[in-house]
Amino acid sequence: MTASSLLAEIGDVGRDAKRGGYSRHAFDSPEQDLRVWFVERALGLGLDVDTDYNGNIWAWWGSPGPDAVVTGSHLDSVPGGGAFDGPLGVVSALAAVEALREKGFQPEKPFAVVVFAEEEGGRFGVPCLGARLLTGTIDAGKARGLRDADGVTFAEAAAKSGFDPERIGPDPGRLGLIGRFLELHVEQGRGLIDLGSPVAVGSTVIAHGRWRFSFTGQGNHAGATLIADRADPMLPAAATVTAVRRLARAVPDARATVGRLVPTPGGTNVIASTVDLWLDARVPGDATPSLVSDIARAAEEAAEEEGCRVEVTRESYSDDVVFDDRLRRDLGGWLGGAPELPTGAGHDAAILAGFVPAGMLYVRNPTGISHSPEEFAEAADVEAGAAALATVLERLAR
Amino acid sequence: MTASSLLAEIGDVGRDAKRGGYSRHAFDSPEQDLRVWFVERALGLGLDVDTDYNGNIWAWWGSPGPDAVVTGSHLDSVPGGGAFDGPLGVVSALAAVEALREKGFQPEKPFAVVVFAEEEGGRFGVPCLGARLLTGTIDAGKARGLRDADGVTFAEAAAKSGFDPERIGPDPGRLGLIGRFLELHVEQGRGLIDLGSPVAVGSTVIAHGRWRFSFTGQGNHAGATLIADRADPMLPAAATVTAVRRLARAVPDARATVGRLVPTPGGTNVIASTVDLWLDARVPGDATPSLVSDIARAAEEAAEEEGCRVEVTRESYSDDVVFDDRLRRDLGGWLGGAPELPTGAGHDAAILAGFVPAGMLYVRNPTGISHSPEEFAEAADVEAGAAALATVLERLAR
Repeated sequence: MTASSLLAEIGDVGRDAKRGGYSRHAFDSPEQDLRVWFVERALGLGLDVDTDYNGNIWAWWGSPGPDAVVTGSHLDSVPGGGAFDGPLGVVSALAAVEALREKGFQPEKPFAVVVFAEEEGGRFGVPCLGARLLTGTIDAGKARGLRDADGVTFAEAAAKSGFDPERIGPDPGRLGLIGRFLELHVEQGRGLIDLGSPVAVGSTVIAHGRWRFSFTGQGNHAGATLIADRADPMLPAAATVTAVRRLARAVPDARATVGRLVPTPGGTNVIASTVDLWLDARVPGDATPSLVSDIARAAEEAAEEEGCRVEVTRESYSDDVVFDDRLRRDLGGWLGGAPELPTGAGHDAAILAGFVPAGMLYVRNPTGISHSPEEFAEAADVEAGAAALATVLERLAR
Repeated sequence: MTASSLLAEIGDVGRDAKRGGYSRHAFDSPEQDLRVWFVERALGLGLDVDTDYNGNIWAWWGSPGPDAVVTGSHLDSVPGGGAFDGPLGVVSALAAVEALREKGFQPEKPFAVVVFAEEEGGRFGVPCLGARLLTGTIDAGKARGLRDADGVTFAEAAAKSGFDPERIGPDPGRLGLIGRFLELHVEQGRGLIDLGSPVAVGSTVIAHGRWRFSFTGQGNHAGATLIADRADPMLPAAATVTAVRRLARAVPDARATVGRLVPTPGGTNVIASTVDLWLDARVPGDATPSLVSDIARAAEEAAEEEGCRVEVTRESYSDDVVFDDRLRRDLGGWLGGAPELPTGAGHDAAILAGFVPAGMLYVRNPTGISHSPEEFAEAADVEAGAAALATVLERLAR
């Protein structure tokens, strides 16, 4: 059982014929298939599996207990995502367990492999939803009411998948078991190409959040309505996309993106009545909210000019994260001086870092591209990552 | 059987809980339900029903034959459309047949009520598809290959609905039977409010067409990709929306709209790899193509600036239409001097006008709004429209 062979086993699950790559979203059919697959593989390794109230799956090597060494990642994807973002951390953890067991290692500390739910927020909009619920960094009532693109709530989807939506929320007992958390992840940039290394230790995660901009105008006939009579919400939405770029460019190291934009009703010969767009904004330090305020002001001006309205809602926000100092130093030392790498990408480990010592390992991505079918990792780097994970887990679990 | 009571019978079919209003698209479940309903109602009136090779339904009062008087409209809608656009013409035709029969009228000429397929182009992108196929104004091979948003071709959908996709295309035998064609339709503007009249006679339809703009960039991670490293197709798409408004405003009486825009993959934390948008452009006379050329040039410049590419495809185009002079004069006279009204909205009657004498009646819309749940007609105006239709059909069928 290698990390590569495990990845190959799930290579056909959730392929997206339309977008390319994979679409695996919380509680949908491919994501459920991946959960079943993970449980089977974990049981095959002799691990004990349970799923917490928040839909995160835990596979224990030995008995659960305090000061546990926990490693894992997620199996869901963005729409049309790559094969590595999430699954690489899960398969590397399973492969590391097998490698350690084969060499006769028995952890002295409690040890678990975890799969977090809805890390991408691809279905219900809030990233790291499973980790946020576990740690109480999202209100359970708010989470229950989150809706997917079809209007299905998280509570309804959870109930349909056999979870009790009334039980979701902070789980201090479970969280309190974690001594150290470690997540391995494919790199989502070009850092390791430049460094010439297959593996790096995570240093920081940039502050990031998501905001929904809902523009409302007057739906009407595209042919029969004179330009002067229009209140077309597509116009301020487009102006906002342009403002996002202009304003973000003026802030050092800021990243701001509109990747999702939905006109309703969305007919070719119909002036939209509403346009919703989602802003993903990330600025190191505490400057993200002020960038978003500037963008919101530009959106309001553009809406007013067209006779439209706009409502801005924050869907999530996380501050800058610096991973645990001691753990970073240890990881770097045990891996023979592996380089450290900051990232603009959010991770479950960054949520947990607010509560327990947490760290990350990144595996080189020769395309530098992620959240895309072009995301990649060479087989040799995948195995180097799994081996590095086994090395550090062995140290941590002693 | 009044036009209003018939409309009420289909008031629950195809309601769109998400967008509001109705979504009834070619060969989907609500549209099939409406077809079955129409056939039952027509048979109940003693009409003989057949469906042509192109999915248009014909209900004959008496035997089919040449120089026929044909009236009708369509039952499909735009996504999230109103209750009247299309169905009003169909129910008014059925009500007119019953009213004429009740007063003992027997048409001397062949007489048919017709329901045209996919008038809105809401599923396969080409408006008036049934009328275009019948008249040969779209290539049958091109029509077979049209795809809906899920990638299903028109040929596949037709086959699934029991049509032979190899048989679709020009039907000169059927077309040759039409002596005069008349379509009643809800007005899609404020003309009749200003004129203080419940009914008008159609004069002209503005030239119109649809173009697809496909922008291609580089999909990537929204957090890990620096602004300077991006080729984000959302940027030139937004610039194009802005250019559409700016350029259209400079052309007298032009209407140009982007009501449909689809980023792929469409994730919040994902830089899109492609963005498709659809331009609906209409300018009286022959100026539409030059407006579209200007817009395409702006799109190309914006794409180049972002390191993206754009491909522009014409999906449909129709020249200005002036409805038959003689028929317009007759209709106005028989209706006691009903006013004439131009429109920017396309109709099946405008397609047929290139082949047979064709005309239109409009019914007042107190909101002036169409292609929206707010589209409306007062019950008294609905009955006035049906009565006017009966009046002129009686004259035409003598």
